[in-house]
Amino acid sequence: MSNERTASGPIHNRRALLAGGTAAALFAPGLTFAASGDLAAIRKAAETGYDASVKRIQAWIALPSIAAENRDMDKGCDYMMALARDAGFQHVEKVPTDGHPGVFATLDVGAKRTIGIYFMYDVKQYDPAEWSSPPLEARIVDKPDFGKVIVGRGAVNQKGPEASFLAGLHAIRAAGRKPPVNIVLVCEGEEEIGSPNFRQIVTKPNVLAALKKCEGVVIPAGWQSPSNGGVSVNLGAKGIAELELVASGAKWGRGPKTDIHSSEKARVDSPAWRLIQALQTLVTPDGNTPAIDGYFEKVRPLTAREKELLALAAKQLNEADAKKALGVDHWIDDLPWDKTLERLASQPTVNIEGLVSGYTGPGGKTVLPGRAVAKIDLRLVPNQTMEDSVAKLRDHLDKRGFKDVEVNVSGGYDPTETDENSRLIKAEIATYKRLGAAVTVYPRLAGSWPGAVFTSAPVSLPAGQFGLGHGSGAHAPNEYYVIESSNPKVEGLVGATMSYVDFLYEIAAIK
Amino acid sequence: MSNERTASGPIHNRRALLAGGTAAALFAPGLTFAASGDLAAIRKAAETGYDASVKRIQAWIALPSIAAENRDMDKGCDYMMALARDAGFQHVEKVPTDGHPGVFATLDVGAKRTIGIYFMYDVKQYDPAEWSSPPLEARIVDKPDFGKVIVGRGAVNQKGPEASFLAGLHAIRAAGRKPPVNIVLVCEGEEEIGSPNFRQIVTKPNVLAALKKCEGVVIPAGWQSPSNGGVSVNLGAKGIAELELVASGAKWGRGPKTDIHSSEKARVDSPAWRLIQALQTLVTPDGNTPAIDGYFEKVRPLTAREKELLALAAKQLNEADAKKALGVDHWIDDLPWDKTLERLASQPTVNIEGLVSGYTGPGGKTVLPGRAVAKIDLRLVPNQTMEDSVAKLRDHLDKRGFKDVEVNVSGGYDPTETDENSRLIKAEIATYKRLGAAVTVYPRLAGSWPGAVFTSAPVSLPAGQFGLGHGSGAHAPNEYYVIESSNPKVEGLVGATMSYVDFLYEIAAIK
Repeated sequence: MSNERTASGPIHNRRALLAGGTAAALFAPGLTFAASGDLAAIRKAAETGYDASVKRIQAWIALPSIAAENRDMDKGCDYMMALARDAGFQHVEKVPTDGHPGVFATLDVGAKRTIGIYFMYDVKQYDPAEWSSPPLEARIVDKPDFGKVIVGRGAVNQKGPEASFLAGLHAIRAAGRKPPVNIVLVCEGEEEIGSPNFRQIVTKPNVLAALKKCEGVVIPAGWQSPSNGGVSVNLGAKGIAELELVASGAKWGRGPKTDIHSSEKARVDSPAWRLIQALQTLVTPDGNTPAIDGYFEKVRPLTAREKELLALAAKQLNEADAKKALGVDHWIDDLPWDKTLERLASQPTVNIEGLVSGYTGPGGKTVLPGRAVAKIDLRLVPNQTMEDSVAKLRDHLDKRGFKDVEVNVSGGYDPTETDENSRLIKAEIATYKRLGAAVTVYPRLAGSWPGAVFTSAPVSLPAGQFGLGHGSGAHAPNEYYVIESSNPKVEGLVGATMSYVDFLYEIAAIK
Repeated sequence: MSNERTASGPIHNRRALLAGGTAAALFAPGLTFAASGDLAAIRKAAETGYDASVKRIQAWIALPSIAAENRDMDKGCDYMMALARDAGFQHVEKVPTDGHPGVFATLDVGAKRTIGIYFMYDVKQYDPAEWSSPPLEARIVDKPDFGKVIVGRGAVNQKGPEASFLAGLHAIRAAGRKPPVNIVLVCEGEEEIGSPNFRQIVTKPNVLAALKKCEGVVIPAGWQSPSNGGVSVNLGAKGIAELELVASGAKWGRGPKTDIHSSEKARVDSPAWRLIQALQTLVTPDGNTPAIDGYFEKVRPLTAREKELLALAAKQLNEADAKKALGVDHWIDDLPWDKTLERLASQPTVNIEGLVSGYTGPGGKTVLPGRAVAKIDLRLVPNQTMEDSVAKLRDHLDKRGFKDVEVNVSGGYDPTETDENSRLIKAEIATYKRLGAAVTVYPRLAGSWPGAVFTSAPVSLPAGQFGLGHGSGAHAPNEYYVIESSNPKVEGLVGATMSYVDFLYEIAAIK
């Protein structure tokens, strides 16, 4: 799951609305009197359940499921099923795939409307040596300017927000209420490797039938801006293809099949140099524009409405904050802020995630490597598709004589788009507004998620992210999730939990 | 130390000569009657000392000194000193450097001539997971077609051959003889990182004074061809510069300073792509010819004599064996065998030893790396120098706007040349011939060693490799050294030991 920086804008007087027991909460605009009463009681239950909710996140983090390492996958799936049962889902089913299993669960309360929720139970790889506290310990740490946070792998990506959603269901039940909508939960354990088998889960006949009844699908997210508490509502996301380009003596028929002594370079071809030559054809000399033949053929330019939304976003978001968060002094071509947002939303990319060849330890080692690998991700925009883009890459290499350079795709998904006027998006915006969070409507998330599995046929639903609360460090060391916020602009665990509860009520009520 | 494949040619009837107690050994041609008698007695002592000699190799392998990892360096130096004392060196001195210490030792028997011996006490890094037996256990293994071998890191590179030389000194003493020449021993612990401080050792006034008395310097080596027992006499070696090319957001001022989320590629520059662009300017598109500006300026073409020697070598050496050993089906440009030998001897290279950037584990990780590194070695021929070649690389990058791409040199040495008519080379050839080993005189070793430290001022001595015996797998898993040969063409430990003893007598006697 991508670690997106989120929208920012003027901070509204949201704390008062979220504080339990105030008149504002009792008469939340847009909801019925009864619903408002429910919310107050549920908030009290969420506060009472705080310790249990924290422990739920910590216990989940303690069990990392890492598909890339085939680590604790079955255990993680079973754990996910137990979490669902515990939160009140009546039907909980393991869904086998060609890879690691997923989970399908339903909580049917006989409501008029149904919402789909998407969970990932896997997390990204990590190196404990890079962490300030053990990544599976989920230690509670005082983080200056943030408050109490849980530090651990998966804290924000995605266990913290997901567990906050589950905490909402626990709170609803503890308050003696039932959810205002039926809930369909679909979970996978391969999100971090590009969801290669997720389509198998959602197209299982009973899963698909259940999803077809939904207003849309959201993944819980904790991406409130720490500077102003703002959030984004994303009308889609870029697609991604993750792959390895591999040059090897074995496939090439030239150069060595294993690493040999480097003095042989004088008479033996080098797969590493071959990879470099193949790579440099893929982008413009500045490394910033894909040069794969035909790569832009299917790219749909930004619409007038998308440009309008991006211009608005440029005003709401803070350039200095973004540069600071990224550790970047200059944008590509020293572009102005608004143009960087346009590029983020509209430009497909060819990125090097990693390079591996020969000797990779400290110092040098006099080898001529038999194999060289570039880990690549292609970010895609509508109407590119993963399949077509990978095929174009293959053709591009073939045409230049690099038929032996392997293109090994490990996963990915098509770009996704969701109608701004769908009930799902309207409910997201309405909930955020009711809770006083500044909303930036953003045409397209630059990160990627398996949303296309939902937005494309046969599921064909609106899909997006939703949630208050804050965390950061996805895919990085010291990933964290705020549980007790010292920042008046950002929700802690209880506030995040209540944002999900509010959203369920909003989905039930929205016109 | 480079893992060179060695010369091969017609096998002579050498076993009879080497077998102790035969008339041939008692009257070895070219030596005095007295010397021949010495050799027979010393061989008996070497046979008696076999078990102790094997244990000496094993115990040494058990203590790996790895400069790149700063592992056991002081211990390794102390051990080296103990080995020297044990072998009879009267003066043994630790020589501090700016890096790890070296050892200087002398064995003065009042002889007319003095020989210099060069040892490295360090070994290459290793990954135990890749080994068939623990690399420090120095297990004795039956290797089909070879006999009993010691498997361990450093077995052939260079502890086995070095310990075989020491075994010769032990045998001489055990036989009640004294060495026929004085011996000056210089050792370093940084050979595997390119000998960055070795010049400090040899130019220490008392060390330099001792070296100045030497006929030349040899490093013990066990490179007998397994196919025919042949050996090479190398009249020099290529130089090498080992370095890292580093592109980073920190130095560039563009792109991220650490790894960030890969979706940002749409608006953030990529140090990894920058490295690729810089790299691809360094060689021709086939990766086979250096394209660094002015790189060939100082290259001296092969002389007529060098070409003559290479043509002879092409007849003596076996192409199929070489291809099999390397796992290579085609040479560069499908060159014929003789041309590959010319290239090996005459062509400078730019080789990629390794590539490291971003995520290097299994599968992918959606990062835009803040740093990318290419580990490079430049192989140099006369009259290139390391300093000049690195300067040319720097200029080449600067001229193309890659001023930010760092060139971090970790070590290396200039090319080295030794006169075919020097007493050292004449003694090598004479010894090999007397022992019946087919000799290929080779103009230049394609691998590199710190020979230039000896051949250039102020030491200015002939320098080369010497030794019978066989091992392989330097820098690779399952490195081995034959101690009991089942191959009639290859010497075991006793034969290797005696080759050094013979060589000392030859140095004493040669005109």
